[in-house]
Amino acid sequence: MNLNATVSFLAPIQEDITAIETLMRSQAEGHNPDLQAAFNLLLSAGGKRIRPAVTMLAGRMLGGEHMRLIKLSAAIELLHTATLVHDDLIDGSLLRRGMPTLNSRWSPGATVLTGDFVFARAANMAAQTESIAVMKLFAHTLTVIVEGEINQLFSSRCKADREAYHKRIYAKTASLFETASQSAALISPTASQEMIDAMRLYGYHIGMAFQVVDDILDFTSDASSLGKPVGSDLRSGIITLPAILYAENYPHDPCAQDLIEGNCIQDPERQAELISAIRGSDAILESHHEAERYIGIALENLRKVPASPERYSLEDLAQYIVRREF
Amino acid sequence: MNLNATVSFLAPIQEDITAIETLMRSQAEGHNPDLQAAFNLLLSAGGKRIRPAVTMLAGRMLGGEHMRLIKLSAAIELLHTATLVHDDLIDGSLLRRGMPTLNSRWSPGATVLTGDFVFARAANMAAQTESIAVMKLFAHTLTVIVEGEINQLFSSRCKADREAYHKRIYAKTASLFETASQSAALISPTASQEMIDAMRLYGYHIGMAFQVVDDILDFTSDASSLGKPVGSDLRSGIITLPAILYAENYPHDPCAQDLIEGNCIQDPERQAELISAIRGSDAILESHHEAERYIGIALENLRKVPASPERYSLEDLAQYIVRREF
Repeated sequence: MNLNATVSFLAPIQEDITAIETLMRSQAEGHNPDLQAAFNLLLSAGGKRIRPAVTMLAGRMLGGEHMRLIKLSAAIELLHTATLVHDDLIDGSLLRRGMPTLNSRWSPGATVLTGDFVFARAANMAAQTESIAVMKLFAHTLTVIVEGEINQLFSSRCKADREAYHKRIYAKTASLFETASQSAALISPTASQEMIDAMRLYGYHIGMAFQVVDDILDFTSDASSLGKPVGSDLRSGIITLPAILYAENYPHDPCAQDLIEGNCIQDPERQAELISAIRGSDAILESHHEAERYIGIALENLRKVPASPERYSLEDLAQYIVRREF
Repeated sequence: MNLNATVSFLAPIQEDITAIETLMRSQAEGHNPDLQAAFNLLLSAGGKRIRPAVTMLAGRMLGGEHMRLIKLSAAIELLHTATLVHDDLIDGSLLRRGMPTLNSRWSPGATVLTGDFVFARAANMAAQTESIAVMKLFAHTLTVIVEGEINQLFSSRCKADREAYHKRIYAKTASLFETASQSAALISPTASQEMIDAMRLYGYHIGMAFQVVDDILDFTSDASSLGKPVGSDLRSGIITLPAILYAENYPHDPCAQDLIEGNCIQDPERQAELISAIRGSDAILESHHEAERYIGIALENLRKVPASPERYSLEDLAQYIVRREF
């Protein structure tokens, strides 16, 4: 998917995104050729580059130095990429965005080390911003993301639990969006503490919305758009917002009972029925409303910053997050 | 093993080492309890804390601020610990220093993530030193270490190759020793560029010697001291200096022929014979001489710094590296 051509909020930073791509790729140059191939494969598998877009737009809006913002944006996307490598390995995922994952082709050892290498290059890029505050934030964010994955590994599965869900999607997604916008503000010399906080809250809330929408699409989309089976979270015992709301709304459905009590539904037929029931229920619309509430708070925070073309793009980006269909 | 009680060079920094231990342990406090248990297990499995000792002694010698040095030393040891977690997982090692490894008890996924968590906490500690130069050096060193492991995974095994050996032990061991001493100098405001270079070269050369001695002990020690079988590197196709020198000295031995040509020796009996032949040969003494040459260069560099109790301790530490028997 070529998002650049279709999404207007990227227009002011088209050239920046190209520069960020080039800088990211340069991080494997001169290294082991197998590693370089794997690194380029990971970057080509791509994704929407929405996190670096947040950083770049926020930083330009606040008057940050251009090259520092390019480096920071590359660091954010590399950190994101690194966490996905280990994530896919642990989940045993064979596809991501419809492309084969690294672990589907390489040995576990090579995959672990490639992930470590991407971490190292993310740390290198972050250090190139010459900001101690950014380095501290990166280290903190990595801690949050990794601990979230550990919690997911050790905590009880299959249970509809709103608090656990919010914690999980913060760790998994919102923490890095928060860092993407906050760190851009941190390296912008004119940003006041109030603006730094506003940008942090903007990132946090679009990040929460982003993951809620991802979790909705996991039910409502089709396998070919998702690049993985529909309802795969539920099938693997991860209970997301649509399932939580469904269980709250239909407590007498036996499957909902299982979700409330935390009994894993193993039977593929019952899983398929539940996925279909959730898909056809008001839980989907309610989940959308929750995502829209997050976007509303993000936009409120954004309005604390003077109007500018970049601010309008960040508004569009926030709106895009709840409207996207893939 | 309680090294502190037996090795005199640690006397001036006895309390510092305790403070470093406490600070390292604090890095898991308040986190997931399973993770905290794993983290404490890793730190208890311990080792000699020789890398933080290098940092602390070098930093005190050069007048670095005390608390910053404690943080830097903790960061160095945490980075070391993190790399070992993934290393043991990839090698499938069940024991390290005679203690069960994390991967021998936990799932691969939990082990990968615990390693990532330790990386995150190492990055956090490094950022606490408030030094951009240190952060850049850490990111670089992590890149070198990880790429060294990737090279080891992909490069041809079983071959006696001095150049590949030197590259490997630099990546595996000397790079972090180099960073331990150089970063201490970097945060010491009075250290001249010449002193920073001298400390880097000190760390590099004791690190190279350290790994050569480790590789000698892998042949000459016994399984109970090693906490793993004798000659385990050679058995797994990793050809270290004693084997390289043996192959150079006895090219007509059929096993040496295999090493020269890079043919893996699979038969356990032939492996045992070769290990025994190397053990009894002059290759061991020659390897020791190589380690001593490294130590000689380390000491020359150390003499560029004015004499002080800490300098004497660093001299003792260098001597200890080639004299240790475990």
